[in-house]
Amino acid sequence: MTVTILSTVDADGQAVRSALSDAVGRLDDAIRPVVAYHLGFCDERGRPAVADSGKSVRSRLTMLAAHAAGGDELCGIPGAVAVELVHNFSLVHDDLMDRDATRRHRPTVWAVWGDPVAVLAGDAMLSLSHEVLLDSGSPHAVAAARLVGKATQDLIIGQAADVDFEHRNDVTLAECIRMAMGKTAALLSASAAVGGVLAGAPPATVGALRTYGDNIGLAFQLVDDLLGIWGDPAVTGKPVFSDLRSRKKSLPVTWSVESGRAAGQALAQWLAQSGEPSENDLRAAADMVETAGGRRWARAEARRRVRTAQQALAAVTITPEYRRELCDLADFIVERSA
Amino acid sequence: MTVTILSTVDADGQAVRSALSDAVGRLDDAIRPVVAYHLGFCDERGRPAVADSGKSVRSRLTMLAAHAAGGDELCGIPGAVAVELVHNFSLVHDDLMDRDATRRHRPTVWAVWGDPVAVLAGDAMLSLSHEVLLDSGSPHAVAAARLVGKATQDLIIGQAADVDFEHRNDVTLAECIRMAMGKTAALLSASAAVGGVLAGAPPATVGALRTYGDNIGLAFQLVDDLLGIWGDPAVTGKPVFSDLRSRKKSLPVTWSVESGRAAGQALAQWLAQSGEPSENDLRAAADMVETAGGRRWARAEARRRVRTAQQALAAVTITPEYRRELCDLADFIVERSA
Repeated sequence: MTVTILSTVDADGQAVRSALSDAVGRLDDAIRPVVAYHLGFCDERGRPAVADSGKSVRSRLTMLAAHAAGGDELCGIPGAVAVELVHNFSLVHDDLMDRDATRRHRPTVWAVWGDPVAVLAGDAMLSLSHEVLLDSGSPHAVAAARLVGKATQDLIIGQAADVDFEHRNDVTLAECIRMAMGKTAALLSASAAVGGVLAGAPPATVGALRTYGDNIGLAFQLVDDLLGIWGDPAVTGKPVFSDLRSRKKSLPVTWSVESGRAAGQALAQWLAQSGEPSENDLRAAADMVETAGGRRWARAEARRRVRTAQQALAAVTITPEYRRELCDLADFIVERSA
Repeated sequence: MTVTILSTVDADGQAVRSALSDAVGRLDDAIRPVVAYHLGFCDERGRPAVADSGKSVRSRLTMLAAHAAGGDELCGIPGAVAVELVHNFSLVHDDLMDRDATRRHRPTVWAVWGDPVAVLAGDAMLSLSHEVLLDSGSPHAVAAARLVGKATQDLIIGQAADVDFEHRNDVTLAECIRMAMGKTAALLSASAAVGGVLAGAPPATVGALRTYGDNIGLAFQLVDDLLGIWGDPAVTGKPVFSDLRSRKKSLPVTWSVESGRAAGQALAQWLAQSGEPSENDLRAAADMVETAGGRRWARAEARRRVRTAQQALAAVTITPEYRRELCDLADFIVERSA
């Protein structure tokens, strides 16, 4: 299965990467090196580098969706570039807001160039994401740009909720899911749907791709939250118990608190505390999530979402080969370790 | 003259304000109150207010340009809303980057809600600016969105140069003008041009509106720089000698330094110093700019630019009544005191 994904992804990935590089090349001298660094094209002095540029799940989704919907080989490219730009704009601004100094094993943009440059580099990528679609010459450019624009608004809303949650101790699971639908699922959903739109797919197919994307999006966040607690630091590039350190109201944590179980109540008390937790504290908090059932729930819910995503695709007529790859990508999302 | 401007502006201004309010209404609960506050629609607790919302020069330009180009009464509205959103996105991010705590006599967004909310509120306005145009239903929506998008990139580039200048003592007048063309003139130029585009004007008219906008844009920055030194704090809402306090490489300052005159050399030495300047220091620095001729040059250059702007309009066929109003608006820009 993995081999199939990689072979398609290799050709598509190179085409997207090249188009992304061209788009970044349109930026001005003052911003281009910063964006190129963030995207892994070069090091902080502008010297070409092959750095980890992330999983590129969003552009892979767009390309697979465009193929699945029967579009010509390259029609998904502007959408793939746009969703990667939106995703990376949000990462640069997110790292700044969260004061995260490391991403993909390298210093973040604000850590290298300071806050103002991080603000502007994010702004430039956001603005560029629209340009790439509108300048594409695709007959579906406007529909695609509106779709990606709407997802961007949803993403910003999700981030705003995330910021708001930091000051609150009464976040419900429903709020937490809504936040994840905005912050994570909206753009994954748009990534799949925009592939369909650019391929000229009928509304039912675009709708199925959207449902697929929404569901793998939530699965993606559930797995992210599990990795944020139990991920291997050597693989994720984040410290051990990363999300517990910041007492983040993640999905498994919030589920555990709402479970009504003793371990969930203990967890709620622990979350309300302040100060730097010790390694033992963190281990104890992780155990509370596990005992309350949050870890099991998150895994099961992620799998359930992946099945729902796969079923959505089964209901419409799309190229079987690419439907399989989309199903495999959904499986990859729940099986990944970083 | 002023009466003529105000009468047109009143009707247009109300229509734009209402459309802007509708656009902001599309934002989520988490962001809407922040954006509404920044735009002067409400106070920081969300209570309706009539606060100073700025001069709205950009939306006035768009509406006048659309009328001048013979467009129907409302065709300029989506463009006017979009350019106001881009302008205000840049103000919110600019205030954050510059750590300015006051704007239009009220606390800035970051000062009220903190940095992350300011980042997100700016992002939301930038993204909304594209949506407003693409959702407008105008047959010229895509051309308008591309034009505003390009100006947004130029604006970001100008801001990046502005940030970069803070760390440098060798900024040339040419660089300074290029920075102002990006940071200020690009959006004013697009504000005028987008009115023409939405009115379906021929390329020559759009080109003339763009030249007009570029030139009043630079005039606007020159006057801004003069007000940043000699403006009346009671009117501008900024501290006296505001730009000298931050040793800003503004246009009249940079011109003075490049003049080769003794006062210009003294000014260069003063700019290279660090530490908080006293009121006497500031007064002395302002006198150096005056003695070197920077104040006189900036005034003359602003007037020259306004004439060039007015001449550009004289070369194309547009409605004489609105051409006069555009010329009056250009005059207003150099005569304003805030």
